[in-house]
Amino acid sequence: MATRAMTEAQLKTLKVNRDRLLKGIHDTCKFGPGERWGTAETETGMSRLALSDSDKQARDWFVQTTKALGCRITIDQMGNIFAIRPGRNESTATFAGSHLDTQPTGGRYDGILGVHAGVEMLRVLNDFDIETEYPVGVVNWTNEEGARFPKSMVSSGVWAGEISLEDAHNLREVGGGAATMRSELERIGYLGSIPASHDAMPMAAHFELHIEQGPVLEAEQRKIGVVTGVQAYKWFTLDVKGRDAHTGTTPFAARADAMLLAARMIVHAQELAATKGALASTGILTTLPGSVNTVPGHVRFSLDIRAPYDATVDELETELRRDFDSLATSKDLPLPLSVSWQSDTVSPATLFHPDCISAVRDAALSVLASPDVVDSTHASSLIRDITSDAGHDSVYASHHCPTSMIFVPCRDGVSHNPAEYCSPEDCAIGAEVLCQSVLRYDQLRSSRGGP
Amino acid sequence: MATRAMTEAQLKTLKVNRDRLLKGIHDTCKFGPGERWGTAETETGMSRLALSDSDKQARDWFVQTTKALGCRITIDQMGNIFAIRPGRNESTATFAGSHLDTQPTGGRYDGILGVHAGVEMLRVLNDFDIETEYPVGVVNWTNEEGARFPKSMVSSGVWAGEISLEDAHNLREVGGGAATMRSELERIGYLGSIPASHDAMPMAAHFELHIEQGPVLEAEQRKIGVVTGVQAYKWFTLDVKGRDAHTGTTPFAARADAMLLAARMIVHAQELAATKGALASTGILTTLPGSVNTVPGHVRFSLDIRAPYDATVDELETELRRDFDSLATSKDLPLPLSVSWQSDTVSPATLFHPDCISAVRDAALSVLASPDVVDSTHASSLIRDITSDAGHDSVYASHHCPTSMIFVPCRDGVSHNPAEYCSPEDCAIGAEVLCQSVLRYDQLRSSRGGP
Repeated sequence: MATRAMTEAQLKTLKVNRDRLLKGIHDTCKFGPGERWGTAETETGMSRLALSDSDKQARDWFVQTTKALGCRITIDQMGNIFAIRPGRNESTATFAGSHLDTQPTGGRYDGILGVHAGVEMLRVLNDFDIETEYPVGVVNWTNEEGARFPKSMVSSGVWAGEISLEDAHNLREVGGGAATMRSELERIGYLGSIPASHDAMPMAAHFELHIEQGPVLEAEQRKIGVVTGVQAYKWFTLDVKGRDAHTGTTPFAARADAMLLAARMIVHAQELAATKGALASTGILTTLPGSVNTVPGHVRFSLDIRAPYDATVDELETELRRDFDSLATSKDLPLPLSVSWQSDTVSPATLFHPDCISAVRDAALSVLASPDVVDSTHASSLIRDITSDAGHDSVYASHHCPTSMIFVPCRDGVSHNPAEYCSPEDCAIGAEVLCQSVLRYDQLRSSRGGP
Repeated sequence: MATRAMTEAQLKTLKVNRDRLLKGIHDTCKFGPGERWGTAETETGMSRLALSDSDKQARDWFVQTTKALGCRITIDQMGNIFAIRPGRNESTATFAGSHLDTQPTGGRYDGILGVHAGVEMLRVLNDFDIETEYPVGVVNWTNEEGARFPKSMVSSGVWAGEISLEDAHNLREVGGGAATMRSELERIGYLGSIPASHDAMPMAAHFELHIEQGPVLEAEQRKIGVVTGVQAYKWFTLDVKGRDAHTGTTPFAARADAMLLAARMIVHAQELAATKGALASTGILTTLPGSVNTVPGHVRFSLDIRAPYDATVDELETELRRDFDSLATSKDLPLPLSVSWQSDTVSPATLFHPDCISAVRDAALSVLASPDVVDSTHASSLIRDITSDAGHDSVYASHHCPTSMIFVPCRDGVSHNPAEYCSPEDCAIGAEVLCQSVLRYDQLRSSRGGP
């Protein structure tokens, strides 16, 4: 049958094959097995570093499998692999994409689930003999993790024109080895000929299924997170300066205690951030001079503030600057202290495309309203909009094509850990939402009369 | 004239010679001069490490000067020098004591003032031809600072029987040199023959004039601190354990943030301590894993709690243990954390002897009521009882004879620093209080009919 004007009822019939999806994931996890964390056969983590021999095995599997499913394969100069299934019309493809590389002590789902769900999508389209209006594809991005070559999302970054090919090719593997990205791409046979560029390989849209890597969906018993964008964040180093003093001979009334002020600042930052739906975190704190019996005259700490919108982060920063100065000169402190800010990182928010967000939301409602899954009256309660932390190829993709992501729960929010886990049911729900999202976007392109 | 039944009026006449006292201090500061901090001739610090050549010069000055003033000199096996001026009756002496060694970047008053005030006392007794009832003496304790040989108050500690002679003799100089206390005592000719022991050299009482090394007297515009004892203190290492989490993907509601809890604990510890007239301080804090974008799952910090009485310290500890557990499981935190305590140091309070405290208080009132100093109606407002931080030879002395100390203000509370400063007026007031305290104690011994 053809997809043109597929009804909601028809879309619902496009069920993924859960067992096939999971078998694909676990069979290919023999390429780069990691630490064992449980007794079952599948209870090991993954250690499939980018462009290693095991990554080559996974890539070979991906190329052979998608070719066999009728795709045309294109490999660019960063080793990004685009598998494209033709549609009724020649045009750019609507893509599902993620990555097959892992952290050295990673799990079986981060990245891997997204690529396998894309392959499962191709299989479903073949099973149901679907001809899409425009091509659809699956992309495997190279070295998303940045674990072996120390730049995360480097190859989608080159594709987006935001990282130079030369810088990326010259990235040297961590740990003192001589290998570079280019030398390893050549060695394993994945240095493609076409430029890694959104001009040479444009995408009509990019959808990415991914585990949440956080605890929200599980805690709220949701099945799907409709990812509306990526948080803005700023990193600062704060220096709080008072006066060193002997802990024994210096009464409270004569202290300018940088540790006390820093403690108040950290507590306040979190309280204020909470009122704005933002986050504030301190991961590093050091005391100087650092002696048990010296009240520290200098405390330095990191401050990480985040929110879905740039304006919220800016407002939080402005108010914290004001409040920290007030705290430093408060009457509660016997002597005034000083606070200085150093800006380390500014990462603006990414807002995903409304068309893609709608496609994901509609797909999720449809999939979760299926009688196989749950009472349809509850479908909407199983979905929530969610903001991603930075760290997906979809961020670079979104700069050059409409993009959104689909999050599924992972156990205890754990990721980058061998015990990372997403249930077979949730993997299948996510894959089905991915498949429908791509088809809905394909139909949207058609309904608008062109690519 | 004799001292027997000296009246208050007679005691008041025993004025120290301020210029002579200050000249003695500054002349001998040529033995081990330190960093220059001002332009005036006397505006350098001191660097007179124990048993160095410059310490030998200061010791030689002390021995020659006190001999010339009529004293008998005894040097023990730790190089402690006891200069004793005979009294009407043979008996143990009432001592003034302190130390002539300094920190490597020390000042001109810490220890030095106390010894010179003792020498000035001998001069005043000679000037006024005073025969005391019992001998009075001045003691210079060896290596009080613990700066060269790393054990503070080591030689009064041996005298008190709390540190073994062997351990003390074998102390090796810091910085990798081969010298030990014993080898340096031999080298500079100050390895005495009598045991360093309160049996071999008993003291009837020990008074010590010292700069406060804290800001209280200056801030309150007091001239004399009557030291009633030495604070009790306890040192702990606290481990706060929650869960590492990504700062971006982990909402507040899913965190077990050890840094947040530690911050609340530090603020609370100070608030609670303040209600008890105690102190609480955190000088060292470390975050683990220590990454800008990881909410720390483990924070370790030092906690130093102090109070004049053991019972107050114990009560504070008990309540903090209770409150920290409450904070760790508070409803304000989305997830419970754990707190564990490691006890590092327990230093009980020292309570000085009421007879010595009274002698100091009465002497201070008398000196400060003198028309030379201030309107006598204000004398009592220029005095306060004060508790010392640990760290004086008087602590070990107090375990074997009645003891008290006299504090005088030092500028900005600064000590162990070249710019340490006590005004000539305050040096002289302190020396006069020291002299009267010793005489009052001598009279008290006599009034009680024996040593």
